[in-house]
Amino acid sequence: MSKNNQETLRILPLGGLGEVGKNMMAYEFGDRILVVDAGLMFPENDMLGVDYIIPDFQYLRDNAARVDGIIITHGHEDHIGAIQHLLADIPAPVYATRLTRGLVEVKLARNGMANRAQLIQIQAGDTVQIGPFKVETFHVCHSVPDAIGLGITTPAGLVVHTGDYKFDQTPVDNWPTDFAKLAEFSARGVDVLLADSTNSERPGWTQSERVIGPAFDEVFRTAPGRIIIATFASLIARMQQAADAAVRHGRKMAFVGTSMVDNAKIARQMGYLEMPDNTLVSIEEALRLPDKKVVLMCTGSQGEPSSIIGRLSTGTNRHFDVKEGDTIVLSSHPIPGNEEAVNKTINRLIRRGAEVVYEAVAAVHVSGHASSEEQKLLLNLVRPRNFIPIHGELHQLKRHAVLARQVGIADENIFVVENGQVIELTGGQVRLGERLPGGYIFVEGESVGEIDLDVMREREQLARSGVVLITVTLDKYSNRLLKEPEVLTRGFISTDDADGLIPAVQKKVSDLVNGGGLDNEKLIADAVRSLLYNETRRRPMVFVVSTKM
Amino acid sequence: MSKNNQETLRILPLGGLGEVGKNMMAYEFGDRILVVDAGLMFPENDMLGVDYIIPDFQYLRDNAARVDGIIITHGHEDHIGAIQHLLADIPAPVYATRLTRGLVEVKLARNGMANRAQLIQIQAGDTVQIGPFKVETFHVCHSVPDAIGLGITTPAGLVVHTGDYKFDQTPVDNWPTDFAKLAEFSARGVDVLLADSTNSERPGWTQSERVIGPAFDEVFRTAPGRIIIATFASLIARMQQAADAAVRHGRKMAFVGTSMVDNAKIARQMGYLEMPDNTLVSIEEALRLPDKKVVLMCTGSQGEPSSIIGRLSTGTNRHFDVKEGDTIVLSSHPIPGNEEAVNKTINRLIRRGAEVVYEAVAAVHVSGHASSEEQKLLLNLVRPRNFIPIHGELHQLKRHAVLARQVGIADENIFVVENGQVIELTGGQVRLGERLPGGYIFVEGESVGEIDLDVMREREQLARSGVVLITVTLDKYSNRLLKEPEVLTRGFISTDDADGLIPAVQKKVSDLVNGGGLDNEKLIADAVRSLLYNETRRRPMVFVVSTKM
Repeated sequence: MSKNNQETLRILPLGGLGEVGKNMMAYEFGDRILVVDAGLMFPENDMLGVDYIIPDFQYLRDNAARVDGIIITHGHEDHIGAIQHLLADIPAPVYATRLTRGLVEVKLARNGMANRAQLIQIQAGDTVQIGPFKVETFHVCHSVPDAIGLGITTPAGLVVHTGDYKFDQTPVDNWPTDFAKLAEFSARGVDVLLADSTNSERPGWTQSERVIGPAFDEVFRTAPGRIIIATFASLIARMQQAADAAVRHGRKMAFVGTSMVDNAKIARQMGYLEMPDNTLVSIEEALRLPDKKVVLMCTGSQGEPSSIIGRLSTGTNRHFDVKEGDTIVLSSHPIPGNEEAVNKTINRLIRRGAEVVYEAVAAVHVSGHASSEEQKLLLNLVRPRNFIPIHGELHQLKRHAVLARQVGIADENIFVVENGQVIELTGGQVRLGERLPGGYIFVEGESVGEIDLDVMREREQLARSGVVLITVTLDKYSNRLLKEPEVLTRGFISTDDADGLIPAVQKKVSDLVNGGGLDNEKLIADAVRSLLYNETRRRPMVFVVSTKM
Repeated sequence: MSKNNQETLRILPLGGLGEVGKNMMAYEFGDRILVVDAGLMFPENDMLGVDYIIPDFQYLRDNAARVDGIIITHGHEDHIGAIQHLLADIPAPVYATRLTRGLVEVKLARNGMANRAQLIQIQAGDTVQIGPFKVETFHVCHSVPDAIGLGITTPAGLVVHTGDYKFDQTPVDNWPTDFAKLAEFSARGVDVLLADSTNSERPGWTQSERVIGPAFDEVFRTAPGRIIIATFASLIARMQQAADAAVRHGRKMAFVGTSMVDNAKIARQMGYLEMPDNTLVSIEEALRLPDKKVVLMCTGSQGEPSSIIGRLSTGTNRHFDVKEGDTIVLSSHPIPGNEEAVNKTINRLIRRGAEVVYEAVAAVHVSGHASSEEQKLLLNLVRPRNFIPIHGELHQLKRHAVLARQVGIADENIFVVENGQVIELTGGQVRLGERLPGGYIFVEGESVGEIDLDVMREREQLARSGVVLITVTLDKYSNRLLKEPEVLTRGFISTDDADGLIPAVQKKVSDLVNGGGLDNEKLIADAVRSLLYNETRRRPMVFVVSTKM
């Protein structure tokens, strides 16, 4: 079909940073646009002060009237966390399965946008026509229920977009990935497959979510006191496992923290989290029960300082403290870059007397993403004409491409691209299109996009060596100093050590000014900079304020 | 023997940060002191601006005359990297095996201390009497040759200190760990075992260094152009593997970078690195050879921006660039906290057209540390009365303690401690002693210990939200502004976005000053801080300089 048609589908991985097409993608046919996902990214360690990052969707903003719809594959933050920013500019209907819709609603309500969006509920298996895009949804396993992949048909051909997936044969909700639909696509002929690359460097198969049951049982059987389980607030499948273990071992369970409480409530209302009424208690009730009867579930498994686990580890939580006898389960894998923070948090919790159970010592976490053997199976199931690895950093995409070559996809039909690179499908043929300009949009407190890379570089300099402020007061007639120059430092050297250095700076400035009648702030600053560099080999930011009286 | 003796050996893990006893330990008997190792630590991600960290050895400085000797277990940076700082204050003789001694000499020469130290060369198997300490050295396998562990006998009993070790049965230098000596210690009765905990969370056995040979062969066989291998400059065993592969595949090899060149030279001179003269070339010669005939070996496997690999990845290396066809091998495991930097570096190198081979995709690195089955074997070989897990973060020590319980060491004979906690051995019994005060000593450029935690906190604030500098000029009689307040920001918001905010700040300051005749810099700064917080939810550091004319 597609071979004879010369119409073009444009595939646009948006986002700027890191993982390709993870947080937002767009498909464009003719002048109509379909958006897939609207998630956030977590800042890297050198993105100082940034709360989170959203994709640069300027292209969509410029073409807002052409967007026919937004479809969300599942309810994790990296796929829904930017939805309020997107909807503020792009008033298109949002298509989502039941649980995903609930999680989107929670997020919109928290941002005062409860009634601003048109949410259209679908279910896995549904086919929806969104403008020129015929979207066939199919169920995939992941660490949140109700996740979907997409088959997108336009006159240019059929594209399969997996979203995050794994091939769990024994999922906790007994609902495996829809192999039949993948086979059906394959029979029809898939022009392009876009598939999740997260675990392309992991050999073998990802373990079933079900292995966590026995690991939790072991923890519940041996814990001498309270059990505190930390994970992401959106890992609904993990909530189910914890609730099941609580029932089996006769403990009551409380969710702690706004996002946990809200998400658990939505998931329970919609039937994606099943737990008896008499198992669920409030945190207040839980804290009054005997320790051996309690499970708390909260956030903070990534070592975030402001999370409940982060605060427990530093003794700064308000409602309760860690105590001897507590067992703390970190039920997640550190996001790259968070390893150090997670290790520090574990050390701090141990120091406070807790037993800490984490991925490295027990099977309390499994990945939600397919490993390399599953990725090869997907490729063999779908047998696409062209393959675009998505959802991964460049090195993971490259590795996914190696796997694709291993199962017989020809090199010229594999396209490893980064965000911003448009890919065009015409008559079954793929070629690279234009590059969209785009970068990072940093969100920090109330400000969206006010921080740019220049600001970040200034912060880096400040962070590395601090700041030195010099105030000189000159006689306006003679250009000589009226008093000793004042020197203030922050983040440069300790007060004790400044005692030796500051007089030298004052002398240098005095000599310069009184010697040559120098009144140029820039020249004074340069002289101080080189003095400080010679003395300390460091380069603080130096400001000079001079006033003439 | 030891049971009837009431004399006490004090065991002092020094160091402050992180891994217990890794970088420096002291043994004290009567008033005599033996120091083991003098290494550096790498800064954590939130230790802004710090080059490296050295142990706080104030206790040794206070008791310098009591130190009889310093013995070094092996020549890695985390065991020798602080030797120049230690020797500057503690003029004790340094005992080291041949290669270790050579690596120490290189380091001292680089710090202008070539002739300031008394270096005493020993070999594995030697027994040396250092004050009251009879030290029996024994060979251990690690990723550098000539590494030793120590049996330390005093009237208080026998203590075995492994240093970094693994039980490689097929080491590249054909010199396995000295099992016989461990068995002999065991027969004599070991009062305390202190053992390396680095890999206590890894199941099974660490692979032999020898598996790297075939992995390198695969790279050498398939690489279409130059091969660039990155590792630590002190990983002499890896140099040997690369040199062997170069010979097998008919390539010439050049070491690049001062520390690589120096260490390779020392290792070759001393016979720990064997390579034919006609295999070794200079970097200049290497760059003139056909690409297929070249291997370069350099540093930067941890993604350090200023290393050769770091500079290659950003296109800022002086001598040569990465080009299409290059194969870059990262032959090391990311140090915790460096994962993100390593991944970014890999992505950048791929973007420049290189093939990148790293631990996750090929066996180009194995750990130099024993995994949990080896740790259990060591415990069963030595059967110590008491066990102190060392060389690890708290979570790794705890895990090592679990392994010790599994092989039958009683809980009351296992001591998980952190740096600064003195342990006392008397009559075969171990008990906890005093805690030595101590923290981090940050080294930054030329300054050692001038940066304290207050300075670090100021840097963190600067890094998070930047700095705002306000200059107000007042009439000295009326206290009214003589001109518009000046506002300068760095690292706060981008210039474009400042356009809206700065007039608001100026107005606020003007209103305050002219309205109330306010001339107090602190009150003006507070008012600006709250204005900025309300507008942006961020807290930059605010400085106000006011001058009266």
